Amino acid sequence: MVSDNPFRRARYPLLVVLSGPSGVGKDTAILRMKERNLGFHFVVTATTRPPRPNEVNAVDYFFISNDEFAEMIERGDLLEHALVYSDYKGIPKQQVREALASGKDVIMRIDVQGAATIKDLCPDALLIFLTTNSEEELVERLQQRKTETPEGLKLRIATARQEMKRLDEFDYCVVNHALRLDETVDKILAIIEAEHQRVRPRRVSL
Amino acid sequence: MVSDNPFRRARYPLLVVLSGPSGVGKDTAILRMKERNLGFHFVVTATTRPPRPNEVNAVDYFFISNDEFAEMIERGDLLEHALVYSDYKGIPKQQVREALASGKDVIMRIDVQGAATIKDLCPDALLIFLTTNSEEELVERLQQRKTETPEGLKLRIATARQEMKRLDEFDYCVVNHALRLDETVDKILAIIEAEHQRVRPRRVSL
Repeated sequence: MVSDNPFRRARYPLLVVLSGPSGVGKDTAILRMKERNLGFHFVVTATTRPPRPNEVNAVDYFFISNDEFAEMIERGDLLEHALVYSDYKGIPKQQVREALASGKDVIMRIDVQGAATIKDLCPDALLIFLTTNSEEELVERLQQRKTETPEGLKLRIATARQEMKRLDEFDYCVVNHALRLDETVDKILAIIEAEHQRVRPRRVSL
Repeated sequence: MVSDNPFRRARYPLLVVLSGPSGVGKDTAILRMKERNLGFHFVVTATTRPPRPNEVNAVDYFFISNDEFAEMIERGDLLEHALVYSDYKGIPKQQVREALASGKDVIMRIDVQGAATIKDLCPDALLIFLTTNSEEELVERLQQRKTETPEGLKLRIATARQEMKRLDEFDYCVVNHALRLDETVDKILAIIEAEHQRVRPRRVSL
């Protein structure tokens, strides 16, 4: 027999896109994943929005000015960018490339439209749609956040309705039940683990 | 907003086919999965081969005579059957249907040729190929089993070589490293968990 098993194959890093309507708990899920310290690279998004309490620059986001953001766009430094509820958000290209090159799975959190853009750029990206158990629960979570004006809340709810219709563009859908965050994270981790066992692995190139 | 989230969808039971060359550890992996008591239905295969030490009738296999096996074939009671190393093995059809109807994920262990047959019958079956880390390790495990004559061992090794070329017909490939059985089982469970989060779920009909 030959000395090596033909199935001992290369492990390709994944580009995991965690998306879903505003308020479903993307940030909280990412935070819990970080706490578990599993060797992923979590993309630090650039944004023009001001930090929320407890948010740290270069950790949660790169908080930058409108001018700085415009410069990044001009230099082609962003993989994707969008105006999300009157604030700009963008994914630094070089950061993602370097993390993938190091062999790490890359996790990014991004709005639904942005996820579609990433999929266009990189058909082998792994798209996970996070959702709440009901629309009522989503509204409740947005209200609890207390960062929204009544008009802002109304806009987010209307947008969420539209975004929920785009589920078909995603690979997986994970329900983030209230008070069951660890279960949500376990499901996301199971998806990542399973994808690494695929006979036909995703091969990301950016 | 409408009262229900459109994404709270039905959970479809999976038909999980665990396959791979003789000696990779299918039975041991299944045993460990059973110990974890996760609510799966494990298919009890019918076979004409004599029980190994510690094997229990109607638990590990239905140990039946050649005549009884022939009758099952004639009555169309078997989803699939094959002559595997001079013994007949077959999957009782009604058992699988009833388990799926109850909503349970069904796990079956089957040889590589049999897995291909199940995939033909049921394109939405989930096929997992179990392999060792190297071909040497496979040979070693077959030798340790001490149930093989030298000719029997030679035949199994030659067959394994051929079977390893059929990996492409499978969905996932899990390496069953020696002494890391729980890791193997974790990977299989992650695959099952991930598949339940798919936006386009497998829908088994038999």
